[in-house]
Amino acid sequence: MATTAMLGAAAVGSGLVPPIGCVSTRPDFAPVALAGFDELVFGGHELVDTSLLKRAEQLVHARVVPPGLPALVESDLRAADEEIRLSPMATAGDQRSAIGDVITDLEDFRRRLELDTVVVINVSSTEAPIPYGLPQHASLRALLRALDEGTAALPDSSMYAYAALSADCPYVDFTPSTGARLPALAELAAERRMPYAGHDGKTGETLVKSVLAPMFAQRALRPLSWSGTNLLGGGDGATLAEPGRADSKIQSKRRMLAEIFDHETHDAVHIHNVPDLGDWKTAWDHIMFEGFLGVRMTMQFTWQGCDSALAAPLVLDLARFVAAAHRAGRHGPLSDLAFFFKDPLGTREHGLDRQYERLVHWAHGLGGESA
Amino acid sequence: MATTAMLGAAAVGSGLVPPIGCVSTRPDFAPVALAGFDELVFGGHELVDTSLLKRAEQLVHARVVPPGLPALVESDLRAADEEIRLSPMATAGDQRSAIGDVITDLEDFRRRLELDTVVVINVSSTEAPIPYGLPQHASLRALLRALDEGTAALPDSSMYAYAALSADCPYVDFTPSTGARLPALAELAAERRMPYAGHDGKTGETLVKSVLAPMFAQRALRPLSWSGTNLLGGGDGATLAEPGRADSKIQSKRRMLAEIFDHETHDAVHIHNVPDLGDWKTAWDHIMFEGFLGVRMTMQFTWQGCDSALAAPLVLDLARFVAAAHRAGRHGPLSDLAFFFKDPLGTREHGLDRQYERLVHWAHGLGGESA
Amino acid sequence: MATTAMLGAAAVGSGLVPPIGCVSTRPDFAPVALAGFDELVFGGHELVDTSLLKRAEQLVHARVVPPGLPALVESDLRAADEEIRLSPMATAGDQRSAIGDVITDLEDFRRRLELDTVVVINVSSTEAPIPYGLPQHASLRALLRALDEGTAALPDSSMYAYAALSADCPYVDFTPSTGARLPALAELAAERRMPYAGHDGKTGETLVKSVLAPMFAQRALRPLSWSGTNLLGGGDGATLAEPGRADSKIQSKRRMLAEIFDHETHDAVHIHNVPDLGDWKTAWDHIMFEGFLGVRMTMQFTWQGCDSALAAPLVLDLARFVAAAHRAGRHGPLSDLAFFFKDPLGTREHGLDRQYERLVHWAHGLGGESA
Amino acid sequence: MATTAMLGAAAVGSGLVPPIGCVSTRPDFAPVALAGFDELVFGGHELVDTSLLKRAEQLVHARVVPPGLPALVESDLRAADEEIRLSPMATAGDQRSAIGDVITDLEDFRRRLELDTVVVINVSSTEAPIPYGLPQHASLRALLRALDEGTAALPDSSMYAYAALSADCPYVDFTPSTGARLPALAELAAERRMPYAGHDGKTGETLVKSVLAPMFAQRALRPLSWSGTNLLGGGDGATLAEPGRADSKIQSKRRMLAEIFDHETHDAVHIHNVPDLGDWKTAWDHIMFEGFLGVRMTMQFTWQGCDSALAAPLVLDLARFVAAAHRAGRHGPLSDLAFFFKDPLGTREHGLDRQYERLVHWAHGLGGESA
Ligand SMILES: NC(=O)c1ccc[n+]([C@@H]2O[C@H](COP(=O)([O-])OP(=O)(O)OC[C@H]3O[C@@H](n4cnc5c(N)ncnc54)[C@H](O)[C@@H]3O)[C@@H](O)[C@H]2O)c1
Ligand SMILES: NC(=O)c1ccc[n+]([C@@H]2O[C@H](COP(=O)([O-])OP(=O)(O)OC[C@H]3O[C@@H](n4cnc5c(N)ncnc54)[C@H](O)[C@@H]3O)[C@@H](O)[C@H]2O)c1
Ligand SMILES: NC(=O)c1ccc[n+]([C@@H]2O[C@H](COP(=O)([O-])OP(=O)(O)OC[C@H]3O[C@@H](n4cnc5c(N)ncnc54)[C@H](O)[C@@H]3O)[C@@H](O)[C@H]2O)c1
Ligand SMILES: NC(=O)c1ccc[n+]([C@@H]2O[C@H](COP(=O)([O-])OP(=O)(O)OC[C@H]3O[C@@H](n4cnc5c(N)ncnc54)[C@H](O)[C@@H]3O)[C@@H](O)[C@H]2O)c1
Ligand code: NA
Ligand code: NA
Repeated sequence: MATTAMLGAAAVGSGLVPPIGCVSTRPDFAPVALAGFDELVFGGHELVDTSLLKRAEQLVHARVVPPGLPALVESDLRAADEEIRLSPMATAGDQRSAIGDVITDLEDFRRRLELDTVVVINVSSTEAPIPYGLPQHASLRALLRALDEGTAALPDSSMYAYAALSADCPYVDFTPSTGARLPALAELAAERRMPYAGHDGKTGETLVKSVLAPMFAQRALRPLSWSGTNLLGGGDGATLAEPGRADSKIQSKRRMLAEIFDHETHDAVHIHNVPDLGDWKTAWDHIMFEGFLGVRMTMQFTWQGCDSALAAPLVLDLARFVAAAHRAGRHGPLSDLAFFFKDPLGTREHGLDRQYERLVHWAHGLGGESA
Repeated sequence: MATTAMLGAAAVGSGLVPPIGCVSTRPDFAPVALAGFDELVFGGHELVDTSLLKRAEQLVHARVVPPGLPALVESDLRAADEEIRLSPMATAGDQRSAIGDVITDLEDFRRRLELDTVVVINVSSTEAPIPYGLPQHASLRALLRALDEGTAALPDSSMYAYAALSADCPYVDFTPSTGARLPALAELAAERRMPYAGHDGKTGETLVKSVLAPMFAQRALRPLSWSGTNLLGGGDGATLAEPGRADSKIQSKRRMLAEIFDHETHDAVHIHNVPDLGDWKTAWDHIMFEGFLGVRMTMQFTWQGCDSALAAPLVLDLARFVAAAHRAGRHGPLSDLAFFFKDPLGTREHGLDRQYERLVHWAHGLGGESA
Repeated sequence: MATTAMLGAAAVGSGLVPPIGCVSTRPDFAPVALAGFDELVFGGHELVDTSLLKRAEQLVHARVVPPGLPALVESDLRAADEEIRLSPMATAGDQRSAIGDVITDLEDFRRRLELDTVVVINVSSTEAPIPYGLPQHASLRALLRALDEGTAALPDSSMYAYAALSADCPYVDFTPSTGARLPALAELAAERRMPYAGHDGKTGETLVKSVLAPMFAQRALRPLSWSGTNLLGGGDGATLAEPGRADSKIQSKRRMLAEIFDHETHDAVHIHNVPDLGDWKTAWDHIMFEGFLGVRMTMQFTWQGCDSALAAPLVLDLARFVAAAHRAGRHGPLSDLAFFFKDPLGTREHGLDRQYERLVHWAHGLGGESA
Repeated sequence: MATTAMLGAAAVGSGLVPPIGCVSTRPDFAPVALAGFDELVFGGHELVDTSLLKRAEQLVHARVVPPGLPALVESDLRAADEEIRLSPMATAGDQRSAIGDVITDLEDFRRRLELDTVVVINVSSTEAPIPYGLPQHASLRALLRALDEGTAALPDSSMYAYAALSADCPYVDFTPSTGARLPALAELAAERRMPYAGHDGKTGETLVKSVLAPMFAQRALRPLSWSGTNLLGGGDGATLAEPGRADSKIQSKRRMLAEIFDHETHDAVHIHNVPDLGDWKTAWDHIMFEGFLGVRMTMQFTWQGCDSALAAPLVLDLARFVAAAHRAGRHGPLSDLAFFFKDPLGTREHGLDRQYERLVHWAHGLGGESA
């Protein structure tokens, strides 16, 4: 999906395709000063060494990217390839030095390319969840001590978050991984006055739930059971098939119903890996609800979405909004970006429409002109 | 569905069942002074002469009403039966005298039962649409003249609306029929300072569309085609199978997408009569939408709802809200009730969540205490 | 489901309802001499002590049985209640004596009621699978020795099968449990010249697969993935939610595709317990298949069935067919009954139509007249 | 779809792709002597003048044909282009001379390319149905007289059929149009000892119905209503949107259920044009069926198929089978090819599996070796 985002930014930026799926281009945001798509440049950290052009050709084959498009943005892809580094997490001796390496990479990137803002967005594979409330994560001081002692046990996502915040880069977590979601890192963000956002891009089943669940609630109808089945292939499908990994995802998907309904709902989310689906996810949700006089009725939906195509424009939106927030001096968790996330930081508002209104209102407050 | 509403009001009013599906009982409306369910009494006009108890037993058989319930509210059903009159539309010589008969019935009903407010709600069979802009409907004066000359050609729904407004009863149209939707009747409502509302209760496919369409729009995704198929039986299924009749319904269902999206959508709504479905409607919607880089994706949903069970509580909600509006001195088209209608009067806001917020805000303005 | 079968047999036998869902009443079987529904009498073993009348009323509430019907067949239900014994498996000291108790019950039942044939049909809760190929199950002699030593470790279903065959009763396994599927019991059946049949009644998702999979195969279309999700509540839902239990079911559901297709298919079957669904099962299958020039296409189906209503008539069919087979001197595994089972004994033919043709042909061979 | 068939034959014939979807390549037909894919050559009549290469590129864009494939079979496409003639139906003065022109084209094609057999397959746009039983179609003599008088009023499909049979070419109708389905043309076929087959290739909804309907019947379950909705775009979608045209299709789709079930079923088939779907058809079928004790259950399916990819291999199968039948001296209506058609000639057997068995048996009778 990172590839789709970079390729798409180049294609939109050079006017080859319209920005369908990019929320930030809606007329509602016209007054907001956001970076142009042609002003965005990309870099990153990876574990594997496959050129973006090759990945783009695979996406053509998978019917995500139109034939012919990669060639038209080849120079942008090559430029981004130049800025992709092997992840220090995979090589460095200890967490401390790995973090240091990432900081160096980020500062170097910003300096060399003379960038206003570098937004770090985590779009790497979903991690298994870590135990909640470990002492070494409880405060910045405790974390620093643990890092010194080599016992910090930070997941990769949190190391990236640590590095980003330390290098004065806003941080966004598009995955359900831990990222900046530790008291120690909240403290760090506050100290550095950096904004951050997350968690887990809302691109399919949960997106639909975020409008259907309020509908049932507002109509005083009571879903007794809401059973979701997600078939997905691709990298994400394979990752989530590993024991433990899907749990993060399922947890972030399940918080919503409990917070929207007053009554108890049998709420189940299942994720199954179907390799041949590739990037095409199919979700089937079955909702049995109770109405007047106890009558039981059913709603079902099937969502057949291309994951990368749904996620990539949101990653670009987040880069644009978070950069603007940074410039406007916002810091701490950006709960006004809840619209983008399955498990939004700092808010219990899960209704999509309310989240959208809030996003618009917040964005207008960032100040206009520019772009 | 009228039977379900009357039976249900009695059952809720006497605490036999919880008010599932009644929007007006949500905590959001706690501060609003609304009539209690046990304070509602019913009457009406019908073409056929079947006792409510018999209809209620048919609804048990059709699995809409729980076995045993009709017997528990038998006295309420008998009381309502006493107040149901043969429709003067079916018997009276001319429109003028038919309207006069309805006015007499309404005034008599209010006086004998010592009622604060009588709200007239049209829940009769859908009529075929009438030509738009006839001269005799253009003003109250023109209508009066045409009535005198015997050329008014009002559909039944408009005669009921005329009678209701003349008798100082607020009028609600739960159907797609013409009702109060004529310049002459708007004038009459203004003159009598009566509120009115409509059109066409939003209980199934359109309800779902009213949250999904804003979702696509807010995500900058572009539905290229939205094809809806509705299978329904029962009285409504049979009526809509008659040539012309379904057109009113389809028109009121189709206005939404055009107003929500900037781009053109191939928007089709089909209604098919499947007698064995009885009161159970099944809608299947197929939405093909375009996302980032032109990728085409699909969402489908199936809605299996019991029409009466979905509509009846809304009819009770409308009675409560409109009575409160009347008491609070509101008059003219109540566009704040858009939440309830497929084709709401006086507003182009079709997003359900916005409509809900507006309803709550409006209801709070009606003033509290009481109930 | 046992309750539905007994109640239904009484209702059909006394002409109260038509035998919808009873395969054996199709014109194709008119020439076959089968016991009349009014000739069937019931008994059984249970773990719990709830009267059939009470269970029947629960089924009315669950919308499986029409209101009023239990009262009309009350005497038949009471008669069956008299013949239901507490399962010796739950009380007896060792397997040997439990088996002996069941034999005594069966012989006593046959004698007292003067029955031609007693068919034992296992419709009890699904057991967890047992290890395959244990030495004590390898031959009748080994099993007898192990029983003597108290180490037989037979699952309940196999104890019933043992008892049935020993008491000269044909045995049918409508569940995926082990039952007669052990070399030792095959030997016993051969010795006693008893017929037996199984496994796992085919009533929903697998039934549909047994016609769709041959369709794809005959059309030379290649399903790449076939993902099935089953939502079910009721007793079966609760049982299958226990770790291990669903495995028997999933295994018997999965054998089919491998045997129908030449190529490899990603074949997944998931079972989820949704208590509020009660006896109403919903299966959703998603099939992605490859066609000409490698084009990938999709078929999905949703099956919303009432489990008891689907299974009960088949249990009655099996009783009738197996009794006739016994009378005609058939013994050993009845692979011609594959039409009824997810995981049929003694055949790899999974196509439903072939199975039906085979059933008709076999039944005609049993000889006619009677009934 | 004609383009897909020609392009696909070339690709399969030269080993570039496997023959997925080609029934005639199943092991069951290995003993039958059928023409090799590389032995097939193509020609035809068209109304419009678009090169096959251009059409093939459109099919790449529509995701029917893999990128790159048209270039690999370019010479075959060019060769076929050489053999495509403007339809004389569009230009000739009267029906008689138009038929004569087609005969000349066919004979010339066979002679120049030194072909064993020329099979004429109608894959042109669906025609509106014509009145049944016109006197001029009642016998060959009547038809000849009418042609002389210029009053024959044959639809184009019947003119092609007439020409084919006259030129000693077997004729196949893959469409629901009239074709050879007139007494006069049956007589002509008998006289010329030519085989013919039809009607209307069975590639989607009807295919699935042909296995599900027998399943319900064999299980003694009673579908009360079977409602089918077909969304399709492309040329076929546009054609069927014209008033009258869809009727042929709907009629050929509806014959099945009446012939499979003993009871009455509410059987409805709807066809809607959704231009953006292009060649991708989506069918949704909703089946409400009655089971034991009158319980009502539901099955739904969605079929998302690429029409050309489904139809093209069957057209090639038909060419191979019909050529072999011709060589083996078969003539008259080939009812053993019912497997391929929605509305098969000369048989009321609609169950797919029976049709398949019959096809295999018939094909084996054609004699082997060769290929
Ligand atoms: N619709 C969507 O695509 C969507 C929606 C919400 C969330 N997400 C999340 O976004 C993430 C990416 O999804 P994807 O579909 O692109 O997955 P993917 O498997 O295609 O890509 C993940 C990439 O991350 C790399 N990676 C793994 N660990 C890394 C590390 N420690 N450092 C650097 N790189 C590392 C992998 O090598 C791989 O290339 C997942 O966590 C997914 O759950 C995706
Ligand atoms: N979910 C819903 O049930 C729902 C939703 C939206 C709108 N509606 C509308 O509500 C109306 C009623 O629906 P229903 O399902 O109860 O239909 P129904 O056919 O069961 O009942 C309509 C009743 O109106 C009576 N009637 C017809 N013409 C009349 C007249 N001129 N005067 C007096 N009575 C007359 C009929 O005799 C019948 O008893 C329909 O117009 C329907 O479109 C229903
Ligand atoms: N459509 C169907 O209903 C269907 C289809 C195929 C197979 N089956 C199988 O049939 C079986 C019964 O299904 P159900 O829905 O009726 O389940 P259920 O849970 O409603 O009934 C099972 C009954 O078996 C009893 N039981 C459990 N262990 C026993 C023992 N050792 N001895 C005697 N009784 C025992 C339980 O007390 C319970 O009353 C299950 O194994 C199920 O998988 C059912
Ligand atoms: N799955 C399938 O594609 C499928 C299945 C069953 C039946 N069919 C039938 O096959 C036919 C072709 O389907 P399609 O999708 O290829 O349609 P299409 O519209 O893409 O192609 C039809 C072609 O026929 C040509 N044509 C029309 N009238 C003609 C005439 N009189 N003489 C010569 N050419 C003529 C048109 O110019 C057009 O190129 C239709 O009748 C359709 O109903 C198709
Ligand atoms: Na909303
Ligand atoms: Na079959």
